[in-house]
This record gives sequence, C-alpha cells and structure tokens, in this order.
Amino acid sequence: MDIASFAGLGLGLFCIVFSILGSGNLMGYIDFDSVIITFGGTFAAVVFAFPFDSLMEAMKSVKYVFIYKQKDSDDIIKSIIDLANIARKEGLLALEEAAMQLKDEFLQKGIMLIVDGTDPELVRNILETELAFIEDRHKGNQSVFETMGALGPGFGMIGTLIGLINMLANLKDPSSVGPNMAVAIVTTFYGSMIANLFCTPVTNKLKIRSSQEILIKEVMLEGMLSIQAGENPRIIEEKLKAFLSPRIRKNLKDTKEQNEGVE
Amino acid sequence: MDIASFAGLGLGLFCIVFSILGSGNLMGYIDFDSVIITFGGTFAAVVFAFPFDSLMEAMKSVKYVFIYKQKDSDDIIKSIIDLANIARKEGLLALEEAAMQLKDEFLQKGIMLIVDGTDPELVRNILETELAFIEDRHKGNQSVFETMGALGPGFGMIGTLIGLINMLANLKDPSSVGPNMAVAIVTTFYGSMIANLFCTPVTNKLKIRSSQEILIKEVMLEGMLSIQAGENPRIIEEKLKAFLSPRIRKNLKDTKEQNEGVE
Amino acid sequence: MDIASFAGLGLGLFCIVFSILGSGNLMGYIDFDSVIITFGGTFAAVVFAFPFDSLMEAMKSVKYVFIYKQKDSDDIIKSIIDLANIARKEGLLALEEAAMQLKDEFLQKGIMLIVDGTDPELVRNILETELAFIEDRHKGNQSVFETMGALGPGFGMIGTLIGLINMLANLKDPSSVGPNMAVAIVTTFYGSMIANLFCTPVTNKLKIRSSQEILIKEVMLEGMLSIQAGENPRIIEEKLKAFLSPRIRKNLKDTKEQNEGVE
Amino acid sequence: MDIASFAGLGLGLFCIVFSILGSGNLMGYIDFDSVIITFGGTFAAVVFAFPFDSLMEAMKSVKYVFIYKQKDSDDIIKSIIDLANIARKEGLLALEEAAMQLKDEFLQKGIMLIVDGTDPELVRNILETELAFIEDRHKGNQSVFETMGALGPGFGMIGTLIGLINMLANLKDPSSVGPNMAVAIVTTFYGSMIANLFCTPVTNKLKIRSSQEILIKEVMLEGMLSIQAGENPRIIEEKLKAFLSPRIRKNLKDTKEQNEGVE
Amino acid sequence: MDIASFAGLGLGLFCIVFSILGSGNLMGYIDFDSVIITFGGTFAAVVFAFPFDSLMEAMKSVKYVFIYKQKDSDDIIKSIIDLANIARKEGLLALEEAAMQLKDEFLQKGIMLIVDGTDPELVRNILETELAFIEDRHKGNQSVFETMGALGPGFGMIGTLIGLINMLANLKDPSSVGPNMAVAIVTTFYGSMIANLFCTPVTNKLKIRSSQEILIKEVMLEGMLSIQAGENPRIIEEKLKAFLSPRIRKNLKDTKEQNEGVE
Repeated sequence: MDIASFAGLGLGLFCIVFSILGSGNLMGYIDFDSVIITFGGTFAAVVFAFPFDSLMEAMKSVKYVFIYKQKDSDDIIKSIIDLANIARKEGLLALEEAAMQLKDEFLQKGIMLIVDGTDPELVRNILETELAFIEDRHKGNQSVFETMGALGPGFGMIGTLIGLINMLANLKDPSSVGPNMAVAIVTTFYGSMIANLFCTPVTNKLKIRSSQEILIKEVMLEGMLSIQAGENPRIIEEKLKAFLSPRIRKNLKDTKEQNEGVE
Repeated sequence: MDIASFAGLGLGLFCIVFSILGSGNLMGYIDFDSVIITFGGTFAAVVFAFPFDSLMEAMKSVKYVFIYKQKDSDDIIKSIIDLANIARKEGLLALEEAAMQLKDEFLQKGIMLIVDGTDPELVRNILETELAFIEDRHKGNQSVFETMGALGPGFGMIGTLIGLINMLANLKDPSSVGPNMAVAIVTTFYGSMIANLFCTPVTNKLKIRSSQEILIKEVMLEGMLSIQAGENPRIIEEKLKAFLSPRIRKNLKDTKEQNEGVE
Repeated sequence: MDIASFAGLGLGLFCIVFSILGSGNLMGYIDFDSVIITFGGTFAAVVFAFPFDSLMEAMKSVKYVFIYKQKDSDDIIKSIIDLANIARKEGLLALEEAAMQLKDEFLQKGIMLIVDGTDPELVRNILETELAFIEDRHKGNQSVFETMGALGPGFGMIGTLIGLINMLANLKDPSSVGPNMAVAIVTTFYGSMIANLFCTPVTNKLKIRSSQEILIKEVMLEGMLSIQAGENPRIIEEKLKAFLSPRIRKNLKDTKEQNEGVE
Repeated sequence: MDIASFAGLGLGLFCIVFSILGSGNLMGYIDFDSVIITFGGTFAAVVFAFPFDSLMEAMKSVKYVFIYKQKDSDDIIKSIIDLANIARKEGLLALEEAAMQLKDEFLQKGIMLIVDGTDPELVRNILETELAFIEDRHKGNQSVFETMGALGPGFGMIGTLIGLINMLANLKDPSSVGPNMAVAIVTTFYGSMIANLFCTPVTNKLKIRSSQEILIKEVMLEGMLSIQAGENPRIIEEKLKAFLSPRIRKNLKDTKEQNEGVE
Repeated sequence: MDIASFAGLGLGLFCIVFSILGSGNLMGYIDFDSVIITFGGTFAAVVFAFPFDSLMEAMKSVKYVFIYKQKDSDDIIKSIIDLANIARKEGLLALEEAAMQLKDEFLQKGIMLIVDGTDPELVRNILETELAFIEDRHKGNQSVFETMGALGPGFGMIGTLIGLINMLANLKDPSSVGPNMAVAIVTTFYGSMIANLFCTPVTNKLKIRSSQEILIKEVMLEGMLSIQAGENPRIIEEKLKAFLSPRIRKNLKDTKEQNEGVE
C-alpha cells in the first residue's frame, strides 16, 4: 500500500474542504449541472481520444498508484542467482521445475524460453520487445491522465463560459448575479482540482513506478541472458548489482558474503 | 466502427447541451456572426497554413477516427506464414498469384518486388521509405488538427475581443451590455469546444491509430524480408510474434500448434 | 502561385471584417497609436532579436508562401536519368555542357564538381554541407515568424496595459471609460491577429515548403553520387523513386516503361 | 555557503515586503485559510505525486542550494595524480591505504574496485551506472521542485476560486466585497511566490550544481581508469585537464610545472 | 557595432513612449515601489537561481549583443592557409612564431599544442572539449536571460496582486480606486517589457551569435588538425570552405584563384 498516495490525496481534500468551510459552506460547491459539464465532458473527451482498451487499462492502473508492493530487487537478484546455480549444477533443463514456482511472469516466460532451447539472440529479441511493450503500455496509461489533466480545466472553462452566457443573457434580477456567477465559477474550480489534485500527481507517480519496474525487468533480462550463457553465478551477481542504485546495493552485501561462503 | 469515438463525441455534446439547458436556452448559443469568426476564421487560417493536398487528406482522415476496422495481426501473420509456405514449396515466383489476392497494398507491393527478383537491400530500402512516408502522412494529418486546436481558441478570443470592442464603443444603452457581452463570450465558448471536444481527441486518436498501423506494417516488412531470405516458416512466425504485445500473442498460440501439427 | 495561401488569408480577413461589421464599424478598429505600439513594437523587438541579414531573408521568404512553383520531382528524376545516360555514353566530362542548361543551382553545382573530377567523398561532403545550410536558413526564416508570433500578443498586451493605465489614471469622465477601454483592447486584438492570422500559418507553410525542398535536393544528391559512381541509369531511377511518396511514384510508371523501352 | 542563494532569497523577500508596506500592511497578507489551501494543498499534491523517499531526498537537497562547498577540481586532479604516482611506484595494491584517506566516496569506491583486481570493463560499468544513478537522483530532486512550481500557482488559483465563490454566494453586504476579494487574491499571490521566488530558482540552481558535480565525477572516472591501465601520470593529467573549462585549467598551470619539475 | 540591436531597442522604446504620450503622461508609468518589486524581485530571483560567476558572465555577454565585430570567415581561412603553407615549407616548429601574432585565442592555443608535438588525438580532444565548454558557457548566458524573461512577468503579476490586495483592503475612498489600480497594473507592464522588449530579443540574438562563433571555431579546429596531418594547403582550403554557407563561399573564389596562381 502506498501510504503517501492516500495521505497526499486525503490531505489535499482536507485542505480544500477546510478552506471552503472557512468562509462558506460545502453545499455551494456541489452543483449537479457543473458536475455533468466538467467531469462528464472531460470523461467524454477522454473516451473520444483513446481506444476503449487503453482507457480500461489506464483506469485499472490507478489502483497501482494506491496499492503497490514494490518488488524487492534483493529477492529478484537472489532468485536469479539461485536459478544460475541450478543451471550450473543440473543443466538448463533443470530450470523448468524452478520456473514453475516463479511469481514474476516476465522472469518465468524468459526461463521457459531458455529451457525450450531458444536461440539466445531470439530470447533477447523477444524479451526486449516484451519490455518495450510494457513501457509503451505504461506510457499509454500516463498519457490518459496527462490528457485528462489538460482537458479538465478546458471543460471547467467551457462550463464557466456557459454559466456566464446564461447569466449575462438575462440580467433582469441583479440580486441573482452573484450566486449565478458563483455557480459558473464552480466548474473552473472542478477543472482545477481534476488537474492539480488528481491528474498531475497520478501521472507523475505512474511515471516513477514505471521506471522502477522497467529497471527491475532489465536486471532480470540481463540475468537470464547470463544464465543462458552459462556464466559464473558470482559474476552474474556483480553484473546485476551494477544496475542497482548504491543504496539498494549496500543491503545486498551480506547476501553476497553468505553466497560466497556457500560456493 | 469505433463506437468509443461516437460515444465520446455524443456524450460530450450531450453534457454541454444538458448544462446549457440547466439555466439558459440553446438559442443564445447559436449566433451567425460568432460562427463566421470562430469556425470561419479557424478554417481560413488552417487553409493558409497547409497545402491544399495535406488539408484534404487530413479531412479524409477524420473518417478513420469514427469508422475503423483494425487489421487483425493474427490474420496478417497467418497470411505471411501462408506466403512463406508457398515460397518454400513452389519457389518465389509462385507468390505472384497469391499476391494478387492480398487485400493489403503494402504487403502486395512488397511481394511483387520479391517476385520481380529485386535485390533484398533495395526491397528493404523501398518498403522502409514507403513506411516512412506513411508515418509522415499520418503526422501531417495529426498536425492539421493540432494546429486547428491551437487556432480555434485564438479566433474565439479574436471574436470575443471584437464583441467587447463593439460593445464598449457604444455603451449608451446599459441594458444591452449583458446580452452583448453574452454574445461576445460565445466565440470563446466555440473556440474552447473546437479545441477540447474535437481537435484534442481527434489528434490523439489519430496518433494511436498511426502507431498501430505502423507496427502491423513493420511486422509485414520483417516477414517479407524473411520470405525473400528463404527462412523456415516456423522461425518466421516466432520472429513476427516477438513484435506483438503479449496479449495479442496469446491468441496466436493455438494457431501455432495447429501449424506445427500440419508441417 | 499558392492559391490556398491567398484564399486562407483573404477568407480570414473577410471573416474578421464581416464579424466586426455585424455590430460595430471598422473605424473603431483603426487606431494610429495602437498600430504603433503593436506592429511597431513587435517589429522593433524582431529587429533587436535577429541580425539584419536573417531578417531580410525571412521577409523575402514570405513571398514563397504566396508565390511558389513546386519543383516537379518527375522532371528532376528525368533530368538526372538523362545526365546519367550522357555520363554513361560520353563520359563524365560530357556533363559540362548539359550542366550549363540546368535550372537548379544545387544540381548544376554538384554536376560541375563531378566534371571537375572532385573526390566523391568531398562532393558528398560539400553538397551535404550545402543542404545543411539550406535547412538552417529555412529554420532561421521560420524562427523569425515564430518569434514574431510570440511577440505580437506580448506587445498587444503591453498596448492594452498602457491603455488601461491611462484610462484608470483619469476616471473623471465616466462616459469616456467605455470608448477608452475599447481602444485599449484594440491592441490585444491586433496582437491576436498577428499571431493567429499571419505568423502561425506562415511559419507552418514555410516548414512544409522546406521539407519538400530538402527532399527534392536529397534525391538530387543521391542521383549525382550515383552518376559519379557510374551506376546503371535504370538502377539509379529505382533508387531515386524509393525517395518519393507512393502517390508521386505512380505518375512515374509510364515514364519508366517508356524509358525501359528506349534503352 | 552559497551567499548568492541567501542574498537572492533575502533580496526577493525584501522587495516584496517593501512593496507591500508601500501602500498596505503586512497583516493583510497573512491569512491562515489561504496558507492552508495554497501551501497545504501544494504540499499534499507533491506527497501524492512522489514516493516518500524521493520527497525526503528532495527536501534534503534544498540544503545544498544554500550550503555548498564546491569541490575543487584542482585538488581532485592532484589527488588522482598522487594516486597514479603511488600505483606506478608501488603497484595497484599499494592504493588501498591511500584510498582509506580519500574523502570522496565515489573515488574511494572506484579505487577499492581497482585494488580488488576487478576487470577494467566491469569497473567502468559499475562506476558509470553509479554516475547514471547519481544523475537520476539529481533529476528526481529537480523534478520535485519543478512539479511544486507548477502546482503552487494551481492551488493558488483553487484558493482564489474558493474565495470568489464564497464571496459571490453571499453578496448581501457590499462593503465586504473588497476585503473578501483581497483575501481571495492572497492565495494567488502565495502561489506566484512559491513558483517565482522559490521553486524556479531552486530547480535552476540544483540543475547547475548537478552538472558541476557530474563533471567532477567524470574526471575522477576517467582518472581511475587511466590509473588502472597504468598510464603515465603526466599524460593522465593532460587528459583530465581537457575535461575542465579553460578558466579552471589556467590555475592548474603552476601545479603542472611543479609536478614536471619533481618527476 | 550591431546597429540592428540599438535600432530595435530604440524603436521599441520609442513606440512605447509614443503610445503612452498618446493619451497619458509618462509620470504615471514611473513608480518607485513598482520598480522595486518587478525589477528588484526579478533580479533577486535570478541571483538566487544562478551562481554568481554565471550571472556576471551573462551580464557581460549583453555587451556582445550591442557591440560585436563578426569574425570574417574569409580572414580566418586565409590565416589557416598561411599557417599550412608555413608548416609545409618550414616544418611544424616554424608555426610558433606565427602563432604569436594570431589574435584568436582558440587558434593560438591549438597551434601551440601542435608546435609542442602533442598527440593529434589529444589535440582534437582538448580543442573539442574547449569548444564544448564555450558552447556550454553560451547556453548558460542564454539561459540567464530566458529565466529572467520568465520571472519578469511573474514578478510583474506579484506586484499587481499586491497592488490589488492593498487597494481592495481599503475601498473607503472610491475615487482612489482608479489611480490605485493604474499603479497596480504598472508592474505587469514592467514585467511584459522585461520579457518582450529585452529578454526575448537578447536571448535570441545571443543564440544566433553563439552558433556563428561555434561554426567559425569548428572551421579552425578542422584546419588545425589538417595542418598537423601535413595536408596540402589547397585541399585544406576546399575542406574548410565546405563548412561555410554558399553565400560566404562565393567571396572566397578570387582568393582561391589568387592562391592557386601563387602556388
């Protein structure tokens, strides 16, 4: 669970509600027509702009902004070293059984390709294409929220223009000008919230998640190719750790020493 | 047919009309002068900005935003495998007849080049240039709507400025200020709709369509070069599938097994 | 002559004038001071921003937005094939006479380099540098209008600020507020027109023109290097056509067949 | 200590306070609700947008904007030359003791890798990955302040919209309009300050700091690889100085002459 | 002297003053508090954003926007040909004396490296690094004015917000609203001038200057390496001219013919 996402969104909503209650009341901010034009219009334009599949996938990706268990690069490297040891001692075919127990689909698929005796060049080709597609899909998800963040204020403004035009067209009752204009401005307020409180943070967090996941998968790819090439598990470990940030690497030290001891 | 495009545009228009009817009436939003300056002006600037050919092509491309039959990568790969089998068993010349029945121009053209005995390097050269031109044409189409999406709000603002200047120049009748200003703001409303409800989604959907089509054509190109090189149909299939996203690939599994059985 | 440019600009002006006359009169839009600050200021800042030479060149390039005779890629390829035939039958030196009659400077210059027996590497080097400079000059021209399109609204706003400050400083006569503000807004109107009706379209059309011209010159360059290498005219033709878009290429088919018949 | 950062921030605050006191009083600019919505909202959205770790790191990096001791490239090069001399005279293993006294972690780590007899290719690989991670981390820090600089004015506007809506909803007391609107505008003022007086300068200074630090580390990397390759200390010095800007290099001249004299 | 810069800035100021005097008086535009917040604030934020050195260098670079003597590429090429002739006839060592009389530091430094017998690879390395640093420094200077051009309007708006808040907080005297608001708007006017009349043109002209200077230095670098390689002066000339734009090259023709005659 990503507590920061919950905390950030919650705190943001709290600040807004607190600020509203300071000199007004919440009911003035809930207006059915305004919701329709701002949220409905933004949603409609996004449906228009993206294929249905991409949209569904993006919606599902919001879940990962809030609930996320970062893959532990430690564990990943340990798994790969284990696989390398098996491959060395019992041969590549012995990996099949181990592969069955892997939780990561990407790793499992790559190991199965190796077990099948696929040409190394083709293994790299297939896995790199897969990686490129994962990255593309991530970028697609981010792009949905980026577009939404640009369309939200746009429809907010359209709503405010509608409110202003309606108000200006019949100014007979001067006392209605204020409240009418307040309602008109509410859509701009909604649009700003869509952009600043939701879409910008979601896009940003998805971007960071994506780069973390791609890095882990690159480590896996490098590791699997080394296993196929029959490299020494210790050298594989050193190579893989070079992919990790210094801070993460420190935690691996003990592992390495244990591993060296065992070998 | 791309239902999402129809649904998105329809829903967007519905939201706007609903919101207008909430406190005004539609007639206040239809103003001949405002249409002339916003839609006419935007259209004029786009005519000025692009060569006539590019403009016509972009207009035609709107059709593909709404009516679109995605090429099935399944079918494409099957076609290529079929062609590869023919080439293997009956020789490259036997492809001529098969090529006649292909529906895709790009594929047909490439196969004809191979049948003509064109040098492989030149085949790749010609087909890659063709691909580059297709991509350029797609980008050209997108750029028309992108420019239109920037010019629309621009002319909307020009219209509002004209409305304001006309109104301010003769303020004799105070009761006319409101309605006149309402009319002035209508052009900004039009401009915002051009950008947010039409140009942004159209540009975006064209971009996604383009990348899908280019990917399919890259698969074709790779496949044709493999056929010319006389590669084994099974290896060709594996190579081509590496281009496809994992999800699409799964659907191909049965095909592969059937194919292997037959071979 | 580029009818679209004339039509676009004309239509745009018509829409604006039509819209003005709808509820005001043109005289309210012509104000000497406003012209000075918006057009004069924008012009001054552009003079400040660019060297005199670049500015003159950009001004001249506007002509090409309106009057333009697209070089026929058909004719160009025919010329190169003719030159290749001469070179094959009568030797490279025989090209000198033919070069004299070429209308395109770039082609003529390249052929003269070949006639002079310049080293192929140096020919490519010189012609590619020349191409790079042509592209740079085109980008320089575009950049003048892009900058102008950004400065125009800037000076429009400066003008409106001046108008507002002057008006606010002496509000003694309330009846003058409206007309004074109308005048103040006129500069923003001018600035918007500079950007939307002139600079954006001109920049865009220059960009498209440039890419067309560069493409034609790349075809020439490739052709000249093939001539120098003594390649077969038919192969040269195939290579050059690979540079052209499919649509243009179709028109060349008859030519090719005629050519093949003659050979 | 970076006096310019203190001076710039101080002078900026002084200008703003001076300008406020010119015709108003500071108390009108301190409003609890406005602080909550602008600073609180911006902070909340940033918490939402970034992982907790990245955020903490970015907060810590602000310190370096104000307190910073530029590493002296002079000293660094001297250290490397010293190490090169030790390696030449006493062998690579003799570097271990010297490495212990190095203050720079990156340099120390690299030297230890060399002492451990790590393969040169792997040394470069590990150190370059480390450099890439340092650069990534710097970019992450900059991106926090860049995002904050975009969100600040966004929440400022949300605050002003809330203020306006609350004010417009109850216009019963006309005399309260002015003060209420003043309060509403205060959040936009806060948002502008967050962006212009804090985030833009901090982002910019972090960017410059980063490029300086990366340059120094590249010099170290090049130097360590040369030491491992057993190059002549004098040639190493010339190579490393080629990385430095001409101005810095002049200061090294005397050093060089002394060094040459000693050798 | 760059007359265009003086003329542009002068004409721009004239247009603004002319426009102000049209319906107001200059005194309304000079306000001490407004100067402090807009110019002072912008200056402060720039001081915060850049290291002191970079700032000083950028300030000095403004001089080159107004006073600039373009290096004549003609003369540069002639100098290099002369040096090449000396090197050919009297050996590389004979260049030392000639180098002493060179005015360009970059050329002088490179020749001295050659005289010192530095390895050609190292000469290229050092000079290219020097070129990269010159380009970096130029970009740094441009970036100061670009940042300033973004901060100027930002502080202009902060000033206007302060003016508005102060005004709205005490609306007791309605007759003071107009003049007070006029003063508030003056800072936005200042900010617009900083961006449109100064920073945009200066940034742009510095960018063009930089690319011209870098081009000339690349010609020098290529020339010096050819001299060191002992190439024929005539071939060096042809190579160097390939770097120049066609227009500049024409002027060199006579030179070439004279040179060829002499040789």
